[in-house]
Amino acid sequence: MSNTFGTLFRVATFGESHCKGVGAIVDGCPPRLELAEADIQPQLDRRRPGQSDMTTPRSETDSVTILSGTENGLTLGTPIGLFVPNKDQRPGDYSKMSTTPRPSHADYTYQMKYGIRASSGGGRSSARETIGRVAAGAIAEKYLRVTHQTEIVAWVSSVGDVDSVQPDLITVSRANVDTNMIRCPDPKASKHMMQLVAEVKDAHDSIGGVVTCVCRNVPAGLGEPVFSKLEAKLGQAMLSLPATKGFEIGSGFAGTRMRGSRHNDPFIKKSRGLGTKTNFSGGIQGGISNGEPVYFKVAFKPPATISQSQQTADFEGNSAILEAGGRHDPCVVPRAVPIVEAMAALVLADSVLCQNAIRRE
Amino acid sequence: MSNTFGTLFRVATFGESHCKGVGAIVDGCPPRLELAEADIQPQLDRRRPGQSDMTTPRSETDSVTILSGTENGLTLGTPIGLFVPNKDQRPGDYSKMSTTPRPSHADYTYQMKYGIRASSGGGRSSARETIGRVAAGAIAEKYLRVTHQTEIVAWVSSVGDVDSVQPDLITVSRANVDTNMIRCPDPKASKHMMQLVAEVKDAHDSIGGVVTCVCRNVPAGLGEPVFSKLEAKLGQAMLSLPATKGFEIGSGFAGTRMRGSRHNDPFIKKSRGLGTKTNFSGGIQGGISNGEPVYFKVAFKPPATISQSQQTADFEGNSAILEAGGRHDPCVVPRAVPIVEAMAALVLADSVLCQNAIRRE
Amino acid sequence: MSNTFGTLFRVATFGESHCKGVGAIVDGCPPRLELAEADIQPQLDRRRPGQSDMTTPRSETDSVTILSGTENGLTLGTPIGLFVPNKDQRPGDYSKMSTTPRPSHADYTYQMKYGIRASSGGGRSSARETIGRVAAGAIAEKYLRVTHQTEIVAWVSSVGDVDSVQPDLITVSRANVDTNMIRCPDPKASKHMMQLVAEVKDAHDSIGGVVTCVCRNVPAGLGEPVFSKLEAKLGQAMLSLPATKGFEIGSGFAGTRMRGSRHNDPFIKKSRGLGTKTNFSGGIQGGISNGEPVYFKVAFKPPATISQSQQTADFEGNSAILEAGGRHDPCVVPRAVPIVEAMAALVLADSVLCQNAIRRE
Amino acid sequence: MSNTFGTLFRVATFGESHCKGVGAIVDGCPPRLELAEADIQPQLDRRRPGQSDMTTPRSETDSVTILSGTENGLTLGTPIGLFVPNKDQRPGDYSKMSTTPRPSHADYTYQMKYGIRASSGGGRSSARETIGRVAAGAIAEKYLRVTHQTEIVAWVSSVGDVDSVQPDLITVSRANVDTNMIRCPDPKASKHMMQLVAEVKDAHDSIGGVVTCVCRNVPAGLGEPVFSKLEAKLGQAMLSLPATKGFEIGSGFAGTRMRGSRHNDPFIKKSRGLGTKTNFSGGIQGGISNGEPVYFKVAFKPPATISQSQQTADFEGNSAILEAGGRHDPCVVPRAVPIVEAMAALVLADSVLCQNAIRRE
Repeated sequence: MSNTFGTLFRVATFGESHCKGVGAIVDGCPPRLELAEADIQPQLDRRRPGQSDMTTPRSETDSVTILSGTENGLTLGTPIGLFVPNKDQRPGDYSKMSTTPRPSHADYTYQMKYGIRASSGGGRSSARETIGRVAAGAIAEKYLRVTHQTEIVAWVSSVGDVDSVQPDLITVSRANVDTNMIRCPDPKASKHMMQLVAEVKDAHDSIGGVVTCVCRNVPAGLGEPVFSKLEAKLGQAMLSLPATKGFEIGSGFAGTRMRGSRHNDPFIKKSRGLGTKTNFSGGIQGGISNGEPVYFKVAFKPPATISQSQQTADFEGNSAILEAGGRHDPCVVPRAVPIVEAMAALVLADSVLCQNAIRRE
Repeated sequence: MSNTFGTLFRVATFGESHCKGVGAIVDGCPPRLELAEADIQPQLDRRRPGQSDMTTPRSETDSVTILSGTENGLTLGTPIGLFVPNKDQRPGDYSKMSTTPRPSHADYTYQMKYGIRASSGGGRSSARETIGRVAAGAIAEKYLRVTHQTEIVAWVSSVGDVDSVQPDLITVSRANVDTNMIRCPDPKASKHMMQLVAEVKDAHDSIGGVVTCVCRNVPAGLGEPVFSKLEAKLGQAMLSLPATKGFEIGSGFAGTRMRGSRHNDPFIKKSRGLGTKTNFSGGIQGGISNGEPVYFKVAFKPPATISQSQQTADFEGNSAILEAGGRHDPCVVPRAVPIVEAMAALVLADSVLCQNAIRRE
Repeated sequence: MSNTFGTLFRVATFGESHCKGVGAIVDGCPPRLELAEADIQPQLDRRRPGQSDMTTPRSETDSVTILSGTENGLTLGTPIGLFVPNKDQRPGDYSKMSTTPRPSHADYTYQMKYGIRASSGGGRSSARETIGRVAAGAIAEKYLRVTHQTEIVAWVSSVGDVDSVQPDLITVSRANVDTNMIRCPDPKASKHMMQLVAEVKDAHDSIGGVVTCVCRNVPAGLGEPVFSKLEAKLGQAMLSLPATKGFEIGSGFAGTRMRGSRHNDPFIKKSRGLGTKTNFSGGIQGGISNGEPVYFKVAFKPPATISQSQQTADFEGNSAILEAGGRHDPCVVPRAVPIVEAMAALVLADSVLCQNAIRRE
Repeated sequence: MSNTFGTLFRVATFGESHCKGVGAIVDGCPPRLELAEADIQPQLDRRRPGQSDMTTPRSETDSVTILSGTENGLTLGTPIGLFVPNKDQRPGDYSKMSTTPRPSHADYTYQMKYGIRASSGGGRSSARETIGRVAAGAIAEKYLRVTHQTEIVAWVSSVGDVDSVQPDLITVSRANVDTNMIRCPDPKASKHMMQLVAEVKDAHDSIGGVVTCVCRNVPAGLGEPVFSKLEAKLGQAMLSLPATKGFEIGSGFAGTRMRGSRHNDPFIKKSRGLGTKTNFSGGIQGGISNGEPVYFKVAFKPPATISQSQQTADFEGNSAILEAGGRHDPCVVPRAVPIVEAMAALVLADSVLCQNAIRRE
């Protein structure tokens, strides 16, 4: 289902860039969970553009309202409606609508799929679509925290060619991540990243990057072999985000270069029970969580919208020069951090409910 | 749903390593497609172990029977039952069942999830599970070929540290791929790969690798934003395969290091209509196919089962040495090639049906 | 999925009686359909309470807003958000919340399922929940009308013991139905029905009834054997409505008393192609529409909320007298008419899309 | 999904009348359930034709094999493959295939939907399709019995105009039901029913009937508002069976004639907790089970295949006389009894798993 995600903890989202607003229905959230807008707003604030020079200067406040599903601060087990109004609700002017699809954007493919496309702002392919995900993910995260003390922390691990030192997966926190606007907990790398973004911006260009995410206190037993293995659902979740080009769980592509004798994670006794000494598996074996931290990486390409002119072709195939106006994110990864966390939470909460289902009383 | 994949072109699989057999139900295959066992068997033969020194020497013939859903060589639109008997149907002896979970295998996680696990051979986490996928995928591929002349070709692009030269995505064929047992169309690299596998095998070790896949003649318009974007479903499909650690579409992680001005794919006129000059997008923009070749990479870790002894712990947490007997694949990527092709076909066929649904007469 | 309905033309609803509002997301509506609030509002107006003495005198205007998914009056293929604010948004006072579950209402079962329930107004089990269905159904109906000239007409065929003469299934229209407040196109029966409802109301009691529905210009070939046969999905749709106790397709229970030689519908040539002489099948054979009118009946019980005192027990099992205040519908069937039409439209639109999927170009 | 049923406890079925065989995959059955063929075969034997004069004299033994998903007599949590071979596997001869669709059968609609149909025996619309349901339902029933002591008993409550006295819903057992071949626990009515069936058979005709079913020890809290209310899923399940025309829960259509003051079920203290004095609700309120017995009725039409000649039209619309050969069930209800029980078990087991998912530890 295209705009619905999850089997039991399900989110359906709606809204594009210039309609009345964006939002979501969270269906299947267990009852009696304490929930208020204040549980959701902080991640929306972290997602919001205009937080810094790193991101687009458009001003959007993105205040969420819970429309249904709670009473007196508790979830009822009924669907939770969520809404964030759009500030700019004017649809574009068709007569001024570009006859030239923007390269590597969704103009051409939406037109081919639907025979129509939103006249401005990217429509449903706009990053604004992710607001519903972030709001729903905040609810999933609350559920995981209350029931399993699960912690989900994502950060920018590289921007362009600037790599960073991996933080301690056990201790890295959102506070560490938010110490700088690029959201990289490595202070040295973060400076280089910010310099690179400034440079790219001045060049009217854009740059990609990688977000890494760790999920701690994920109970063993999550994930549904064979088609809904935990890494498969995490992969789908992350690759459904705008601008993503890759996903790695645990050792990832680097793991393909290793020998089994080195890559295998030996079991050792830990305080909570059986654990592993190394964690090349990324906390998942046979598609099921093993109790170790689940960690993964998501690749984001450079944003397609750049403010320099581009040689391309119009819908008819005629050669054309595209001059993009407006001001846009030169790099999406800082704002992608809470979105990645949201999608991880949605996958894990759904997996918890699925695993609950087969437990014998 | 754990053992079902697809919205309209759906496959449900069953079977583990030592039960009566493995198989699948393909539900939603359009009617009046010419179909016989001969359309399915070739890919099962490519998947089969024992084809060479590269793979495990166990002999399994894996002959498929179509149980239902066709008559006089045509599909009826009803579910297609598929069955492949297991040669060795004896369940293991519980009394001899290991008290030590194999490192980086699924013994521990299956036990944690289900409170029980198959006594031998890996059960459902065994590679034998993929037979149902390959059989179903062959039907999906036939449908795509007949309706859209779609071609799907996968190959081994690296083994361990041995990389290969990328073949021409427009012309590379299964015949090219099958010129050597490692299934790499680069003759020079293939030799080094085979040497490496032999070396690793002699060392009682294992090694990982990468499979690259290209899908040509994929019509523009496939993929369902936002949660079932084409790359998201391909990602889920590939990461649901045993031993996978990563997925890249188009430019992948390398794309994160590029600037937008370089990464953007300019539109140009092509004979079939509008195309792109470069293809860093991997044939997908905004989650929807654009008519260019769809290509992606899948990372496979080194197999967990190695024949050297490993220091680990038993289920109780006591230190233990695991001595794995038997003979196993030192490297899974050659056999993964048809499995990757099958999953790609399942995703594309399902996407075609979903797109058919909204076309206006 | 509990609050989502449909495979391709999908609706997810949210909202209960005293939250901010109620609404729906319609996901999968084909693009380029002309759509505005004016296409939706009329059926909401027919559903609205306070239209007459027949229904509850609460005043709710129920104005719908399209939040997303359209631009310049055309659907975009993206999810259509729909919202209707609640007038009375105050949650109940827990301290005054009844310790006595209302007989045959959902108080007890919601408490048992969720361990919590809305403090007032019935929450999600309230008839207000059906607003989202009616709004979504109006969109489905528009799609069916534009693509297949499908017409859906429901009416009240009985109230209590008052039965009516069945109208001509080929010509009965909503105009005929709306000639009286009870929505029965038989003028004589409608008067008796209204008398009965007035009588029951004066007695502080309630009464049940039956809604019959016909769908004309349903193309042959709709319905997905075996678990999603057309009558099975219609049955689920209707039995998911509040207060329903039964569903009949075609000849229904009366058909069980007939012999096959009489019940079989002989084929005859019709202008549109092959048709049937009689239509005991109700337009569906083998779970698939045959091109004849699809017609069915839905049984609605007497509303559980009555304003006379009832001898019952409280949650602790102590004997209790329940005195229900407020003013409520003595009979739900007149307002059920547009709701039944909406659910029929949702089932048919989804079936059309599913059938589109397997058509060969 | 057409050939898949259930959200968590899922069954996918395959097979038509003259292919290799019929079967099912049960996906989602909890692990560590004792299960062997002997748990499944009895219900298949009750479904089997040729048990008496009441049913078709074709001889089919219908022995089931568990292909996967169990080891040493316990379920593994992996998909359970089930297979029953067909005795007569010959597809029909196309050259002899009738050009006249059988009235009220699925010949015409399958042809319209798929553009092809099985050449003989009804294909997927044949009653043989229900074998997979019965086998899967037996597993669901075992799970319900072991975890909740749930008992499911169905019987024939009417044949044609012959009605029977309703047995005590608390005590009626399958042993009572199986005391006669018509499967009606009312001894007097059962004789009249058998006489009627014999009469109808001699007249080369067929007759319909009603199956009533009660489910005891259904825990309170099952059912997923709003679209998957318990009665809605039961309704879908029953109306997906061949030859069904109606479904009633609790008071059914008769309930529409009652006043609320009589229809409401007052709460009273019972040994297990709060219960209701009457049970017009049929054990379900607000779409959720209340702990009282769930009971419902299913209407089956007279079988379409009769051995007298019928005036009809061929596919071209030309007048034609259809002379049906072969010997067929004059009345399907006795054999429908275990099929109704199976579908009830599938709905309840799925509902139990869904409810498990939201329980707080």
